[in-house]
Amino acid sequence: MKTFMERDFLLGNETARHLFHDYAEKLPLIDYHCHLDPQEICEDRRFKDLSELWFGGRSDDGSIAGDHYKWRLLRANGVPEAYVTGTEDPFGRFEKFAEVLEMAIGNPMYHWCHLELKRYFGVTKPLNRNTAREIWDECCEKLKSDPDMSARGFIRKSNVAFIGTTDDPADDLVWHEKIAADETFETVVRPSFRPDAALQIRKPGWRAYVKRLAEVTGRAQIGSAAELCGALDERLRYFKAHGCAASDHGLDYVMFRPAAEEDVEAVYAKAMRGEAISRDEAEIFQTALLLFLGRAYHREGIAMEIHFSCMRDVNERAHAALGPNTGYDAIAQTASGGNLAALLSALDKSGELPKTVLFSLNPADNAQIGTILGAFQSEEIPGKIQQGPAWWFNDTKSGIEEQLRSLASQSLLGNFIGMLTDSRSYLSYTRHEYFRRIFCNMIGTWVENGEYPADEEALRRIVEGVSYRNAKRYFEL
Amino acid sequence: MKTFMERDFLLGNETARHLFHDYAEKLPLIDYHCHLDPQEICEDRRFKDLSELWFGGRSDDGSIAGDHYKWRLLRANGVPEAYVTGTEDPFGRFEKFAEVLEMAIGNPMYHWCHLELKRYFGVTKPLNRNTAREIWDECCEKLKSDPDMSARGFIRKSNVAFIGTTDDPADDLVWHEKIAADETFETVVRPSFRPDAALQIRKPGWRAYVKRLAEVTGRAQIGSAAELCGALDERLRYFKAHGCAASDHGLDYVMFRPAAEEDVEAVYAKAMRGEAISRDEAEIFQTALLLFLGRAYHREGIAMEIHFSCMRDVNERAHAALGPNTGYDAIAQTASGGNLAALLSALDKSGELPKTVLFSLNPADNAQIGTILGAFQSEEIPGKIQQGPAWWFNDTKSGIEEQLRSLASQSLLGNFIGMLTDSRSYLSYTRHEYFRRIFCNMIGTWVENGEYPADEEALRRIVEGVSYRNAKRYFEL
Amino acid sequence: MKTFMERDFLLGNETARHLFHDYAEKLPLIDYHCHLDPQEICEDRRFKDLSELWFGGRSDDGSIAGDHYKWRLLRANGVPEAYVTGTEDPFGRFEKFAEVLEMAIGNPMYHWCHLELKRYFGVTKPLNRNTAREIWDECCEKLKSDPDMSARGFIRKSNVAFIGTTDDPADDLVWHEKIAADETFETVVRPSFRPDAALQIRKPGWRAYVKRLAEVTGRAQIGSAAELCGALDERLRYFKAHGCAASDHGLDYVMFRPAAEEDVEAVYAKAMRGEAISRDEAEIFQTALLLFLGRAYHREGIAMEIHFSCMRDVNERAHAALGPNTGYDAIAQTASGGNLAALLSALDKSGELPKTVLFSLNPADNAQIGTILGAFQSEEIPGKIQQGPAWWFNDTKSGIEEQLRSLASQSLLGNFIGMLTDSRSYLSYTRHEYFRRIFCNMIGTWVENGEYPADEEALRRIVEGVSYRNAKRYFEL
Repeated sequence: MKTFMERDFLLGNETARHLFHDYAEKLPLIDYHCHLDPQEICEDRRFKDLSELWFGGRSDDGSIAGDHYKWRLLRANGVPEAYVTGTEDPFGRFEKFAEVLEMAIGNPMYHWCHLELKRYFGVTKPLNRNTAREIWDECCEKLKSDPDMSARGFIRKSNVAFIGTTDDPADDLVWHEKIAADETFETVVRPSFRPDAALQIRKPGWRAYVKRLAEVTGRAQIGSAAELCGALDERLRYFKAHGCAASDHGLDYVMFRPAAEEDVEAVYAKAMRGEAISRDEAEIFQTALLLFLGRAYHREGIAMEIHFSCMRDVNERAHAALGPNTGYDAIAQTASGGNLAALLSALDKSGELPKTVLFSLNPADNAQIGTILGAFQSEEIPGKIQQGPAWWFNDTKSGIEEQLRSLASQSLLGNFIGMLTDSRSYLSYTRHEYFRRIFCNMIGTWVENGEYPADEEALRRIVEGVSYRNAKRYFEL
Repeated sequence: MKTFMERDFLLGNETARHLFHDYAEKLPLIDYHCHLDPQEICEDRRFKDLSELWFGGRSDDGSIAGDHYKWRLLRANGVPEAYVTGTEDPFGRFEKFAEVLEMAIGNPMYHWCHLELKRYFGVTKPLNRNTAREIWDECCEKLKSDPDMSARGFIRKSNVAFIGTTDDPADDLVWHEKIAADETFETVVRPSFRPDAALQIRKPGWRAYVKRLAEVTGRAQIGSAAELCGALDERLRYFKAHGCAASDHGLDYVMFRPAAEEDVEAVYAKAMRGEAISRDEAEIFQTALLLFLGRAYHREGIAMEIHFSCMRDVNERAHAALGPNTGYDAIAQTASGGNLAALLSALDKSGELPKTVLFSLNPADNAQIGTILGAFQSEEIPGKIQQGPAWWFNDTKSGIEEQLRSLASQSLLGNFIGMLTDSRSYLSYTRHEYFRRIFCNMIGTWVENGEYPADEEALRRIVEGVSYRNAKRYFEL
Repeated sequence: MKTFMERDFLLGNETARHLFHDYAEKLPLIDYHCHLDPQEICEDRRFKDLSELWFGGRSDDGSIAGDHYKWRLLRANGVPEAYVTGTEDPFGRFEKFAEVLEMAIGNPMYHWCHLELKRYFGVTKPLNRNTAREIWDECCEKLKSDPDMSARGFIRKSNVAFIGTTDDPADDLVWHEKIAADETFETVVRPSFRPDAALQIRKPGWRAYVKRLAEVTGRAQIGSAAELCGALDERLRYFKAHGCAASDHGLDYVMFRPAAEEDVEAVYAKAMRGEAISRDEAEIFQTALLLFLGRAYHREGIAMEIHFSCMRDVNERAHAALGPNTGYDAIAQTASGGNLAALLSALDKSGELPKTVLFSLNPADNAQIGTILGAFQSEEIPGKIQQGPAWWFNDTKSGIEEQLRSLASQSLLGNFIGMLTDSRSYLSYTRHEYFRRIFCNMIGTWVENGEYPADEEALRRIVEGVSYRNAKRYFEL
C-alpha cells in the first residue's frame, strides 16, 4: 500500500515516476487562463487567516468572492451558508470543512486541498476532524509570520512563468502595467480579452455596458453594431499592446446564425431601444460579433478560447441572495457541435480563423470536439486548433484522464498545450502538479505496457511540450 | 488466476477485502425502491419450480410478470418467446437459459444469476449446458422441501431491514397493514407513492384512473386539477400514515412548463372532455402537478425520486402481444437537465424542495446530474439532493463504477444513500452484495494507491454509510 | 516493462495470451464492410512507392483517394497540404509523417502504422525521424521486388476469407464477376448495396443519379417514387445474384416520418421538377425508401447496416478544394435513437425487419444502441440485431473497449459479429489483429479476475465466434 500522497502520488510505475520527477516537475507553469485579480497581485495581497485564503467569502462591501469548489463541498454536507460564504467564525468554517473532506473520497478536492496544505504550508498529515485545529494554528501562524505567504509568494513558490488573467474589454489595464514595470517580480502577467458582456444582448445590464465601452473608447455613444465592433477592436489593440495572448468566451452554447448586416443592425437598434430581444435575434447579433472578433484575433495573433455547455445560476434563490459565480452552475447539454464547426468554417473560409481552444463543460462532448478540431488544422502552427484541458467540473482525476485519452485518440497528444487553473485562488497552482502527475502516469503506463517505445528523446519532448513548451510556443511567450 | 466468484469476488486488494468482509457484508439491506408485491410478501408466496421463480411469465389470468432482464437475454440468443414468457416447459426454459448464459460474458446477468444460485440455493458450480439439469433438480428440490424457500424466506436470508414497494395512490394499503401487524416478520415493508397514472394525461386510461381516484377518496367526481391535487394529497397523507418514506416518478423526460392556474384547469377540462391533449398542454398539466406534489412531499418529509430518460415499449408488435414491462424499453436521449434544474429551483425558491433522488437511464447524464444536485443542497440534511445508484440498464459493473466515480467527483460520495434493486424478483437482493463489492473495491483501490489515507475510522464511516446508515438517516427509518 | 509491440502486444495476462495465440490469431478474417475497389483487387494493383500505398493522394485525373486517417495526423502537426494529399515528394511525405507519429502517443495510428510496417514489411523498429529513411528504403525495395506486395498479396497475407466492398446500386458488378471467376484467388469478394445516392434527395446530383439508375435498369425514366423503389429492387436482386450479403446506409441522422403514398410521391415529383426540398419533405421520402428497402433486405436475407451521427465535410474551404472523404468529417450529436427504434418497430410489425447492424459515430450513443437492439431480437437468428464494432473515430483502443464493455453489458457479447475495417487501404487488415488482441485481453482479464469461469470450451466458442464464426453465420457465408 502506498502512503497517502507521498512523493510518487499518482505515479504507478517507474517510467511515470521518471517522466514526472526528471522532466515535468522541474518546468515552470504557464497558467494561460485564470481569474486572479491583477490588483491583488500588484499589491501582493496577504490573508488574515487560513479561512480567508482557503474559502474567501463575503467582503466588507457585500460582494462575494472565493473558491466556489470548496463552498459546494460544504453545502453538500448540509453546512449552513453562514459557514460557507459568511466570514464570522473563521476556524468554525475550517473545522466544518475538515469534517466534510473526510466524506469527499474520490473527489479532486480531497487531493487539491492536501496538495495545497503540503506545498504552501508544509502540512503532511491528512486534514480531518481530529487534525483541523492543529493544522489551522500552524497555517494561520505561517500566514502571519512568513513574508512569503502572500499573493506573489504563492505565485513564486509555484514557479509560475506566465499568468493570463481574465479581463473585460472595458477594463483599465493599469495594474498589468504596474506589474510589468515592477522588476522585482519575474512572473509575466498579461490580460486576456473576454468580451462576454458585449455579447450578452439579452441581459439587463447590456445597454449600460455598451455605454461604458463608449466612454472608455472616448465615444459619445455607440450607435451601431458596426461601431460596437470598432470599439471592441480598439480595445483589442490596447490589450494586444499590453501583451494579451488570448481571448476568452463563456457561452452557454455555441450559436451560428449568420445574417445580412442590416439584420444585425436591426437587432442592435432594437436592443438599444430597450426592447426585448428574442433568442433568434440575439443569435444573429452574437454570430456577427463572434465572426468579427474571430477575424480580429486572427489579425492580432491572439488565440480564441471558447467555453460552452454551461447552465449558469440554476438556483434562483441562491442567485438572488449571493449573486453569480457562487457555486450554483451546472453542466448543460447543448448540441453545440454543428454550430461550432460552422463558425470555424466561416472564419477559415476567408483564411481568418484564429488559433482556437475549445472547452465544453459536458464531458460527453469530448469525442466530438476532438473530431472537429481535426478538420480545421493549418500550416500556420502545429496544433492550431486545440481542445482545452478538462475544465471545471471535469477537472478531476478521471475527467483529466478521459480528456487526455480522447484527445490522444483523435489528435496529437504531443501538441497539447496542457493545463490551466481557471481559478480564483492562489493555491490552485497545485492543479498543474496534479495534471502533470496524471499525464505522466498515463503515458508512463503506455510505455510500460509496450504501447509506445521507451524512446527517451521522444518522451522528453512530449512531456516537456505538454507541461510547458507547447503553451509557450502557442501563445508566443 | 482467481477462481470464479470465490469469497473475494470483485475484491482486488487487501483493503477492499477488509472493508467488504468486516463492514459492508455484515450490514442489513435497505431496499428503498423495488417492485415486489406486498400481497405476495404477506402471503409468503412459494414457487412450484425454479423457472417460476427465475423467470416468472404468463399467469393463468393471462397477465405477464417476472424478470425481464432474463427474458431479454433469452431473446438476444434467438430463443422462441414460448420459452421466454411462456410457462409450459419449465426445465426447457432453464436449459435454454443455461446455454445463453455462457455467451453473456461481461454481462451483469452472468454475475447476478450465479450469486442468486449461490446465496439462495448453495449452488457453486457455473451454470452452463452441462450443469443445467443437475442444478435444476437441486434447486427444484429445495424449493419444494425447504420451508425457507419462500418470499419471506428469501427476504430474511438477505438480511433486508426495509422494503419500499411501489404503489399507486389509489392502491389500498391493506397488505402493508397486515405485514406491519405480523410480529413474526421483522422486515419493515412500506409503500412508496407513485402517481404516474395521474400525470399521464395523454394516455387512454387517464380518465378512468381519475374516476378511480375519485371513488377511492369518496368523491362523486374530480372536477378540476385543483381537486385532483386535493385527492392526491389525501392519498399522500394516507400513505404517510402507513409509513411511506418515498415517492417515485417515472418520466420519459423531465418537463417544466409553468403556467397560470386557469391554463392548467383548461388543459384538465379538455382532457376530461376526452379531447386530444398536445404535448405542450400535457406539460402544463404535468408541471403543475409535479410542483404541487413536490411541495406536499416536502411538507410530509417524503423523498421525491425522479426517474427519467426512458423510451417505453419501443417494439409495437411485442407491446401489443405482451403488454408493458416485458423487456422492450430502451434508453432515451432527452436533454432533461435544464428543465430538471428549473423544477428544483421553483420548489427551492419557496423553501419547499423535498429531499430528491435523481435517476437518468442515460449514463451520459451522470456528470450533469452530479452538478445539478450540487446546486440545491441545503442545511436540512446532509446530501439532501442525491443521485440514485446506477439504474436498470446501467446496473452493471462498469455502470456502477461510472456512477460512483462521477458522483464522487461532483459531490460527497460518503453521503450517498447507496443501492436499491428496482426489482420484481425475490432473488435480486444479491445486487446489493454486487454493489457493495464493487464499491469496496473502488475505495479500497484508492486507499492502496495512496489516493486516500488508510484512516480506519473514516473508511468505516464511509462504507457503513453508503451500505446502510445513509439511507437509514435519509429516509428516517 | 514490455518491449514495444512485441509478440504479446496488448495481451496483459496468461489467459489473454492463450486465447489470442491459440484461437483468435489463427482464424481467417471476414471483412464485411470496407471501401476497397474491386477493380484494383481484380487487376492486383501494385504501388510505385511506400507513400502511394501509405497515403494515396491526388491521382493524374485530379481525384483524391487514400488514407484520410493519415492525412488528418499530418495536418494536426501543421504539415502543408502538398505533403498530405499532394504526391510530388514521396519520401518527404513519409519523413514528415515519421516526425508527426512521435507526437501521436495514445493514438491508434501509432499502433496501426507499426502493425502495418511489421506485418507486411517485416519492419520491427519504431518509425521516427531517425529511422524514416531506412524504413522507406527497405519498404520501397520490397514493394518493387517482392511479387507478393500487391493488392491480392496483402489480402492473402492477411488471411482474408471474405471482403464486402461498398457499391452503388447503379454500379456494374463486372469486377466482382471477374474476381469470382478467377480460381487463383481464394478470397471471396462480394458487393454490398449502398443506396445513399438514391436517398439524398436534397443533394445537387440526385436527379442525375436517378437518371443513371433509369439507364442501368433499362427505363426511359423513373417517374415516381414507387418506380424508383422498383428500380432499386431490381438492382438489389442483381446484387443478391452476385452474392451480396449486406447493404449499407450512411445517414447523418436517422429520420422517421412515415407518410401516405401520395405525400411521398408529391415530394418525389417536386424534387424531379428541380424544386428545393425541405428537410421535412426529404424525411418523408427517405423514410418511405428506408421502409421499402428494409423489407426488400428482409426478403433477400440481406443484412441492413445503418451508420449515423456524422457531420460530413464540415470545413467548407477544404471541401471545395479537395472534395468529400478527405478527412474533414466529424462526430455529430443527433438524438437518433427515437427514430431508429420507430423505424425498426415499423419493419418488425409486419415481420419484415431484416438483420440489422447499428453504428453510431458518437460513442455517447453506445448504451442506447445496446438497449434498442435488445428490443428487436427474434427467433430468426441469434443476435439478429447487432451493434457494429467501434467505428471510424471510435476505432481506438479505448473506443473498442468501451463498445465491447457496453455491448457485453446490454447484450450477449458471445454473439457479436466482430470487426471490420471500413477502410480504403490494403494495409488496414491489421485492425482486425488490433481488435482481436484488445478483445482477448478484455475477456482474459475477466477470467483472471474470477469474473468468468476458466471454461476452455466456452471461451473458445466465444473467441472463435467473435473473431470469425459469428460473422460467417450472420452473413451466411
